[in-house]
Amino acid sequence: MSALDAVSIIVAKRDGAELSDAQIDHIVAGYTSGAVAEEQMSALLMAIVWRGMSRREIVRWTDAMIATGTRLDFTGLRRGDAALRTVDKHSTGGVGDKITLPLGPLVASYGVAVPQLSGRGLGHTGGTLDKLEAISGWRADLTVAQMTRQLADVGAVVCAAGADLAPADRKIYALRDVTGTVESIPLLASSIMSKKIAEGTAALVLDVKTGSGAFLKTFDESAELARTMVELGTDAGVATTALITDMNTPLGRTAGNALEVAETLEVLDGGGPADVVDLTLTLAHEMLCLAGLPDVDPASNLRNGRAMDSWRSMVAAQGGDPAAPLPTARHTDVVVAESTGILTGLDAMAVGRAAWLLGAGRTTPGAPVQAEAGVIWHAGLGESVRAGRPLFTLHTQTPDRFDSARVALADAVEVGEPRQVTAAGTVLARVDST
Amino acid sequence: MSALDAVSIIVAKRDGAELSDAQIDHIVAGYTSGAVAEEQMSALLMAIVWRGMSRREIVRWTDAMIATGTRLDFTGLRRGDAALRTVDKHSTGGVGDKITLPLGPLVASYGVAVPQLSGRGLGHTGGTLDKLEAISGWRADLTVAQMTRQLADVGAVVCAAGADLAPADRKIYALRDVTGTVESIPLLASSIMSKKIAEGTAALVLDVKTGSGAFLKTFDESAELARTMVELGTDAGVATTALITDMNTPLGRTAGNALEVAETLEVLDGGGPADVVDLTLTLAHEMLCLAGLPDVDPASNLRNGRAMDSWRSMVAAQGGDPAAPLPTARHTDVVVAESTGILTGLDAMAVGRAAWLLGAGRTTPGAPVQAEAGVIWHAGLGESVRAGRPLFTLHTQTPDRFDSARVALADAVEVGEPRQVTAAGTVLARVDST
Repeated sequence: MSALDAVSIIVAKRDGAELSDAQIDHIVAGYTSGAVAEEQMSALLMAIVWRGMSRREIVRWTDAMIATGTRLDFTGLRRGDAALRTVDKHSTGGVGDKITLPLGPLVASYGVAVPQLSGRGLGHTGGTLDKLEAISGWRADLTVAQMTRQLADVGAVVCAAGADLAPADRKIYALRDVTGTVESIPLLASSIMSKKIAEGTAALVLDVKTGSGAFLKTFDESAELARTMVELGTDAGVATTALITDMNTPLGRTAGNALEVAETLEVLDGGGPADVVDLTLTLAHEMLCLAGLPDVDPASNLRNGRAMDSWRSMVAAQGGDPAAPLPTARHTDVVVAESTGILTGLDAMAVGRAAWLLGAGRTTPGAPVQAEAGVIWHAGLGESVRAGRPLFTLHTQTPDRFDSARVALADAVEVGEPRQVTAAGTVLARVDST
Repeated sequence: MSALDAVSIIVAKRDGAELSDAQIDHIVAGYTSGAVAEEQMSALLMAIVWRGMSRREIVRWTDAMIATGTRLDFTGLRRGDAALRTVDKHSTGGVGDKITLPLGPLVASYGVAVPQLSGRGLGHTGGTLDKLEAISGWRADLTVAQMTRQLADVGAVVCAAGADLAPADRKIYALRDVTGTVESIPLLASSIMSKKIAEGTAALVLDVKTGSGAFLKTFDESAELARTMVELGTDAGVATTALITDMNTPLGRTAGNALEVAETLEVLDGGGPADVVDLTLTLAHEMLCLAGLPDVDPASNLRNGRAMDSWRSMVAAQGGDPAAPLPTARHTDVVVAESTGILTGLDAMAVGRAAWLLGAGRTTPGAPVQAEAGVIWHAGLGESVRAGRPLFTLHTQTPDRFDSARVALADAVEVGEPRQVTAAGTVLARVDST
């Protein structure tokens, strides 16, 4: 066996060795082309879950995935005479996390370009594209030319990552999903950052979720993921900052596609739940800092309507009708509170699962989702609830799913005496490259 | 995901949990039928290499593999009026290990049935079937009826394991071979013992090799493998004993198919290298003990020719001509000693690789091997060598392979002052079920 034989590479990592640059290039390119078999890559991925990767290996693995496709470049982007800075935001995924929807237009309303390449949801966290597709006519698939034009004209764009952007990551991610190899910090970091680096953004703010509703349940794991991604971005020339934010409780008051668009409109109209507004403003400030505008108060364009104007332009530019009514579910069901007191706990994973069971998410890639389905909760953390009064409203097109959603929510709620609680989206730590 | 979902099973083992009986049955049967994908099984296998298996898991995994096929039963075997005891021997594989060839006929010559189901070689250790196929006309493929008749008539049989004997093991072993998951004690033990238990032998002696020419390089690993296999056999009702024997140095003076048959004939004729004779007699004694004949001296039938008669009957029963000359290589090349002194080291792995490179072994399953190819060494451990005098003779049909074989042997030899050395096949420990 040569050192570039797939079995030798698997055995080396299995036995705890660092892989050479040539070995990483060989295995990533070979798997993407089909020369390395599915069963060989999955064995290697499990060995990586086991043994981890050094910083050098993670950087090389990320570069090797980027090298399997094209890399976009927006360095020449202009609006009129002015050069446009590009800044993107990526969240590792949380329940009720609709922040991208108000955030992109808000930041764009200050003259910054936000090139958001996004994905569809799988499992308990919703996908940004699924949410926007609840808007009549809106389409996610843009060419690079369309995306570039929209960035120059409107500033905000949310679209699907093309098949030629880090195709290795797409193939490896699908394999990890069926082989129990998702939960690995090197693999999570390289997957996210390969797409973001290939996307061509000059700067990036990462929202790394931690808690019961996140991929990573503990602060320490989330902090390691954040550090790893900030290092990867910085090494690749992307100015990168990460915030570690709480995801034990779902964000806002809604989980579900059209329901979250409706909540977004409240925020853009100057209202909306405090946790969603706070996190949107915090992330907007980080993005504006990276764009060279540290002194801007992002709340102003929520109050004066410019963020809403930016949203309407973005939606319309992608074929959507911002004035069209949002689809609503044919069937709703109310879950009442069982006791009276203060809401001291609301489990993000349970709420996410309920929304998913009602039809908001998918079990297999490519399956359709219900735009109308989801969950509204009528009390936020720290607010009072009363026995017998509505606590959740469930929305679906398929009412046979109510029972399983109710089961999923059975232990989601904690009602007790007033005490200190941590709101969803609370910033627990900030990681930058300095 | 249910607990019987493939991903849940992988994740459970990845995170260090014990798998339930139902989970093991589901994954082994599902993989054999095709319901569990190759990439899922390989990820699970790597997780097993990482986390190991408990004794209960190993027993269940072995049983699940046996349950995918048929299990032979020789309990009613008779010769004339006498019931025949079945005893088999299995070696974990070593360089120059031709012991099965004289051993089966020798033990059978005492009225014991030896139902040896064997395999072909892959890599640096030769396969017993490949060796016997050097004999003109000899065939490895017998039906169960043919095998049973030969056991009753002749006593000794060496044949290929049918496709219906633990088919799960066959499929899993092929997968392990290409995914870097061979070196796992639970997987090695269950692979060997599933075939031996399904083969229907009443008793079994295991020759567990340890050292540079063995799969497992350290005594501790070999001892753990031996204990695990003895437990598995005992639990399944097969009286099982294991010897742990040295495999730092190759056995005898030859490695290669026809060359090892020739050496076998020397042993059956009352001669042959001392290490081969000693290990043959030691293993024969263990087998005879398990067959209820502890007081027999196995050397007697080597001296009086009955073991040779038994060999001729076995070869002839499977279509071979015991009197036919063995094939010889068209090309030979001599490697001379570089220094004068006592041979204090001869690396088994290097000799095995040289024989393999000369054509005695295969790189891919199903490829042909050269019956004629191999290596003869002209000095054994502890014997004197002299600079410039022949040390190895290389045999091949394809002389372009001489150079790579010489490279493989370059560092194989250690010549020095007289000192204590351990002969190949020396018994380092004995493991039984008491």
